[in-house]
Amino acid sequence: MSRIAYVNGRYVSHALASVHIEDRGYQFADGVYEVCEVRDGHLVDEVGHLARLRRSLKELSIREPMPEASLKLVLRETIRRNRVRDGIVYVQVTRGVSRRDHYFPPASVKPALVVTARSMDRAKTEAGAVAGVKVITLPENRWARVDIKTVGLLPNVLAKQQAKDAGAKEAWFVDPAGFVTEGGSTNAWIVTKDGIIRTRPAESGILRGITRTTALRMARDLQMRFEEEPFTVEEAKAAREAFFTAATAIVTPIVAIDGQTIGDGKPGPVALELRRRFHEFAEISKD
Amino acid sequence: MSRIAYVNGRYVSHALASVHIEDRGYQFADGVYEVCEVRDGHLVDEVGHLARLRRSLKELSIREPMPEASLKLVLRETIRRNRVRDGIVYVQVTRGVSRRDHYFPPASVKPALVVTARSMDRAKTEAGAVAGVKVITLPENRWARVDIKTVGLLPNVLAKQQAKDAGAKEAWFVDPAGFVTEGGSTNAWIVTKDGIIRTRPAESGILRGITRTTALRMARDLQMRFEEEPFTVEEAKAAREAFFTAATAIVTPIVAIDGQTIGDGKPGPVALELRRRFHEFAEISKD
Repeated sequence: MSRIAYVNGRYVSHALASVHIEDRGYQFADGVYEVCEVRDGHLVDEVGHLARLRRSLKELSIREPMPEASLKLVLRETIRRNRVRDGIVYVQVTRGVSRRDHYFPPASVKPALVVTARSMDRAKTEAGAVAGVKVITLPENRWARVDIKTVGLLPNVLAKQQAKDAGAKEAWFVDPAGFVTEGGSTNAWIVTKDGIIRTRPAESGILRGITRTTALRMARDLQMRFEEEPFTVEEAKAAREAFFTAATAIVTPIVAIDGQTIGDGKPGPVALELRRRFHEFAEISKD
Repeated sequence: MSRIAYVNGRYVSHALASVHIEDRGYQFADGVYEVCEVRDGHLVDEVGHLARLRRSLKELSIREPMPEASLKLVLRETIRRNRVRDGIVYVQVTRGVSRRDHYFPPASVKPALVVTARSMDRAKTEAGAVAGVKVITLPENRWARVDIKTVGLLPNVLAKQQAKDAGAKEAWFVDPAGFVTEGGSTNAWIVTKDGIIRTRPAESGILRGITRTTALRMARDLQMRFEEEPFTVEEAKAAREAFFTAATAIVTPIVAIDGQTIGDGKPGPVALELRRRFHEFAEISKD
């Protein structure tokens, strides 16, 4: 079955799906995106993802490409046409097509909207995640507005590739004060030696992850001890557990940081419990 | 006459010129570019622009899309087909099209190449520039690798739009120590109270502008006093002159910074002399 993409009002063959060379997403990274998990054909955390998309657009003064109710229909139709039961849906909005000029284009220029969906092998993803992954740390080098989910992801690309080259899955950025900010495409967590779950507050230096918010809510509901406080690389290496969260990664245990084993080198019980609970949550919170 | 664009091996109608929605330039800002002035149908500073393009690609581990001799032909053919005598040629190279994933795609994925050209009204540009422009200053908020000319230009877009909203042409970024780094799309210069031309060294915090290099060489040839040293916003406001350089702006005098008049509020003699000399240089250095 061939894939279908939604591009600016039309459902087209994914292989032929294209945008103009002067789309501002292509020439200026002048756009934002969201990735949402699809589970049994339903969107997970859709409300959170759409709220964040609205915020990202607002921060950049990009108009919403269509009313939210319409966008929800497009997401569902894209999922349906691609027969995705388990996988992801990807939404990208840019400031639209206009003759290259840094300044915003005239108000008559409409934002561009692209939506794609694809299936993922849930069993394979699950097996990879629960086996535990490795991360490396790198100096934070991104711009000051990482709270906006823009397509300006080159620093993240380079960091994640550097991780891959080192045999790791993810790179954690470290701010000048020595505190971990977040990963290239995930939020960073540890369980301290005292058994307290810790993740950096979303007020500075990171994107407010939707899965991060859900994981915090679960920790609270489960009466686990947690705190939104930054942690250093040293604290992470000495931690009982470490893990990361993201829409596609859910909760993924980390077994080594910069080559140093975390805990006993196996996925920790807190991470695995949160992952199990997240699966339950996803089952009951489907749209 | 309709415009023509070069896109991945073909000359196509500009109106229909497109790239795939999974081109990494669109989804990750994973690409670089150059803008080169065209004068009387010839490229200005072509050697410098192509050398910098090679460097940008190398820094990002993106392969060169074609041998340089071929690229030169494509630039010329794009200029010819668009009948550009005075204007610009734009070159963009991205890491190519691949299923969305932060990590670099397989080696089999070819880089993507887009070239466009368009005419500009030289008399109009000249009149606007020599009248003098205004700039504002903003805190530096870009990533650490601004020495690479990537399409990740959203911070620049936002800064320049903020300048426009304030009635100015350009925004100067200011580093945490109070020193001006560069403009949203230009290099920053002053002429101190002592009559010394000053611009920030290219070793940190800025892109090594091709026109900047040419202007420095001209200053040397003309035995003008100059130094590659950073300057603060206060020094700029107290300067005898201020100006910026870029391939399209050449040397553009600045008459106000953050609303404060520079010198006597008119374009300064050093900036105007450098601009005049640049025109001469461009005439004799055409390919």
